[in-house]
Parts: sequence; C-alpha cells; structure tokens
Amino acid sequence: MFSKDRVILVTNDDGITSGGIRALVEVMQEFGTVIVVAPDKPQSAMGHAITIHFPIRLAKVDIFDDVEAYACSGTPVDCVKLAVDKILHRKPDLCVSGINHGANSSINVIYSGTLSAAMEASLEKIPAIGFSLLNYSSKADMEPCKKYVRNITRQMLTNGVPNYHLLNVNIPNLPQNEIKGIKICRQAKARWEESFEQRKDPMGGTYYWLTGQFINLDPGEDTDIYALDNGYVSVVPVQHDLTAYEDIDFLKTNWQL
Amino acid sequence: MFSKDRVILVTNDDGITSGGIRALVEVMQEFGTVIVVAPDKPQSAMGHAITIHFPIRLAKVDIFDDVEAYACSGTPVDCVKLAVDKILHRKPDLCVSGINHGANSSINVIYSGTLSAAMEASLEKIPAIGFSLLNYSSKADMEPCKKYVRNITRQMLTNGVPNYHLLNVNIPNLPQNEIKGIKICRQAKARWEESFEQRKDPMGGTYYWLTGQFINLDPGEDTDIYALDNGYVSVVPVQHDLTAYEDIDFLKTNWQL
Repeated sequence: MFSKDRVILVTNDDGITSGGIRALVEVMQEFGTVIVVAPDKPQSAMGHAITIHFPIRLAKVDIFDDVEAYACSGTPVDCVKLAVDKILHRKPDLCVSGINHGANSSINVIYSGTLSAAMEASLEKIPAIGFSLLNYSSKADMEPCKKYVRNITRQMLTNGVPNYHLLNVNIPNLPQNEIKGIKICRQAKARWEESFEQRKDPMGGTYYWLTGQFINLDPGEDTDIYALDNGYVSVVPVQHDLTAYEDIDFLKTNWQL
Repeated sequence: MFSKDRVILVTNDDGITSGGIRALVEVMQEFGTVIVVAPDKPQSAMGHAITIHFPIRLAKVDIFDDVEAYACSGTPVDCVKLAVDKILHRKPDLCVSGINHGANSSINVIYSGTLSAAMEASLEKIPAIGFSLLNYSSKADMEPCKKYVRNITRQMLTNGVPNYHLLNVNIPNLPQNEIKGIKICRQAKARWEESFEQRKDPMGGTYYWLTGQFINLDPGEDTDIYALDNGYVSVVPVQHDLTAYEDIDFLKTNWQL
C-alpha cells in the first residue's frame, strides 16, 4: 500500500545512527515518503523533555538510502516539533518512533523518549506509534520486528485509532517463529525501584549512577507485561488526559477548601 | 499542625536558588522537618527525564535557615529518586515540588519538571503535590501563594488523596484579595502550537529557539484553565495510567491483527 504522497516522519530516542531506527526506516519505505529527524546522540529516558534553555541545531545527514534525514541536537519531542515546523512545513501523515532498544511497556510510557516523541505527534493530531524491542543491546537483531511493525502500521493507516491516540507497541525478544501474535492491552501497573551506585572520581569526589529494578505490581492478564511475558507483541492505546476522575468527588466531599 | 517527625521533601525544576522553592520551604517548615533536594540549575520542561548517560552529583548547600539542602546535577525526577535512596534512606511523608515560576495547568502536566518530580514521588506511594504560579518572572511575588499552599498541604496531610495520586495545583497571578478560592478540576484539553525562531550564529550556522503558543481546545467549565481564568486556584488529581480504555474495544473489533 505504498503511496509517494504519504509523508512518514521517523524519529527515535536512541539516536539517528541506531540499528532500531534503520529497521524502522526500511519498513516505512514500503508505505510512503520517509523523512527522518532524530537525535544526534542517545536521548533515552528523556521523557517529555523539550529544550528551552539552549538553541537547537539541525544537520542534514546522508546515512539512509533515498531518505532525507536530519540529526537534531534536541530531544525526541524537539525532533517532532522541528520536523513539522521547519522541515516538512506540514503535518506528516504518520509519525513512528523507535524501534527502541529496550522495553517501553507499562509505566515506562512516562519515562521514554521514544513514546514522548509519538505522544507529541499525537497531541498535534498526527497518527503516531512508538515501537520498542525487549532487547537493550545496541546490536539487537531487529529483523523479527519488521513483520509486526508492518502489520500494525498497515492497520493504523487503514483503520486508525480514535481521537489520534497513540499506540505503544512492544515486541518480545524472541525469534519470529516463537512470537505468538499481537494483543491489544492496557498499561500494567508497575514502577521502578531505584537504587544508586555510589562511586568516587579520581579527585575523591562522590558521584552516583542511577540503576533500578522494574517491579510489576499488576496480576492482570489483560496487561502489556502479561502479553509480552507470554510471547505476544503488546499494543496499548495511549491518551493524554491524566486526570484521576474518580478522585474529583472524593476531594469535593472530603476536603475543606 | 507541626510535627518534627514529619519529613517533607521539597524539590522543583527552576533550580535550588529560585524564589519559588524558598517560599515553598517557608510554608513547609510550619508542618514538619524539611529536606530540600533540588536541581543545581534550571530544569524547566524536562518532563519525566531521568539521567542515565551521565553520573549525578549532589552538593550540600547552606542557603535556607535550619534546613538541610542539597543541589543536584540531575533532573527533578533524579532529585526525588536520590533523596529517597541516598539522603533520607526512607520515604518522606510528603513531597512537594515548586512553586514553579509559570503555569503547569492542562497538558503542561506532561512537559513539566515540577509535576514530574511530584509524579515520581506519587509512583513511589508518597503523598505529592506540584505547585505553580501563573507568573514566569524569576522575581514573581510568591507571598499570595502561601495561604493556598498552606491550606492544600493541610488537607493533603489530613484527608489525603486516594491511591497516592498526585495533585497539580496552579495559582492565578493575582493579589491575594482577588483570588476567589480553590476549585477541584479536570485537566483541560489543550496543546502547544510550536514555532521555532531561526537565527544565525557568528559563524553563519543556523540554530533554532523553541517558542510556542498555548491553545486551549476545551470549552468546559470544570477545567483547570477555566478555574484559573476566573480567579480560582485549580487543583487537578493526577494518575499514572495513560491507557485509552475506550479504544481497546475499537481496536479489537476493527483491526485485523
């Protein structure tokens, strides 16, 4: 279902030279005209950061066959904003982010630069998908992902998602013949239990490295974590309203304001 | 309702030397033992960024009367994580973030470092509030905020919020006698329309400054924007599940996966 007139913006948070974005570009070329605007360095865990204290640079780079591509000094969200305003001068027909080297299931949706880029596109009413593979290696084999990226992209272009909500897609780190299929899921309740590794620099100063352990708090069988644990690709539709509606009555009733 | 045993973690995203955090510390000292762990430089618009590619530094600073305080080289979220793991060695009884110099109503909840710090505390099941004043000036007068910060903090400590959801509190930029009261609200649907200012550096290279215009898309009278526009302090309870539940059936029915 290739159409030259369909403009597809590709970005990520691992940086423009990562293997994941290369695989994503290859699949997107089957669907339309691809433009890449991606960070010039790794921007993982940047959340929905935007750059307001520094100017942003764009450099045209020639690293993909037949694809206009720009390395951007800003965050993944900056990439989407700049692409729309200064490169495309229009909204693309689709924005895809990834393929991330590492999981973005569950609560990672709020930490992930990959997902934030897709979220930004979605806020601008651009159909948007974030793709992630459950393998943190920079050398991860992205080939088994392609079938699912292709399938989900085709469905997005054919059937869409209501209200321009984005999709958070995670792919288990399995050979293609062991992946059982695709499940529509909800976000599992989970959190990171942080711990910092304390070290001394050569001058004797203390510094810390953030490390952490992912804790799934959700026994549900309809979650993304459950789907991934059982060999399925997970697809979670994601919206932007963080209001805890069920608390409004509680606060109105119990708080003396 | 002061209690020495009540430990209150104060952070922000404007940096530890901002006027807003000073005002927040002053009010929190009425409630318990205050510890400040805040960024050593402005970290506005950092969203839920965490620092994984660089080590993080902490420096003890003596800038508040009778308050243990640390300047942190990381993001607002890093500050909360480090405070719990390496300074307090326990969860605080309350985490407050702000007072931000500028609005964090509506969709700003996902861009704001102030709110992300409170979100991180909330994910760790710590009662958490983000406070913001609708005045971007670094010299903004924080005095009119104090009454509302005090009132909302007292209610949080007395009556709480279900499920450790955080509160996003915005305060209109008005003299205290013109503020009409406090409203419990939902997050207004809104977005930023970005535009980049293109400039040339002295070497002739192009760079961009992110600017933008906030667009309220929501005519509702129960939103935070509406409350603020009408002279009220807005309080939005905020949760962490971004699943668009109403889309799940649509996708299961219409997508061929």
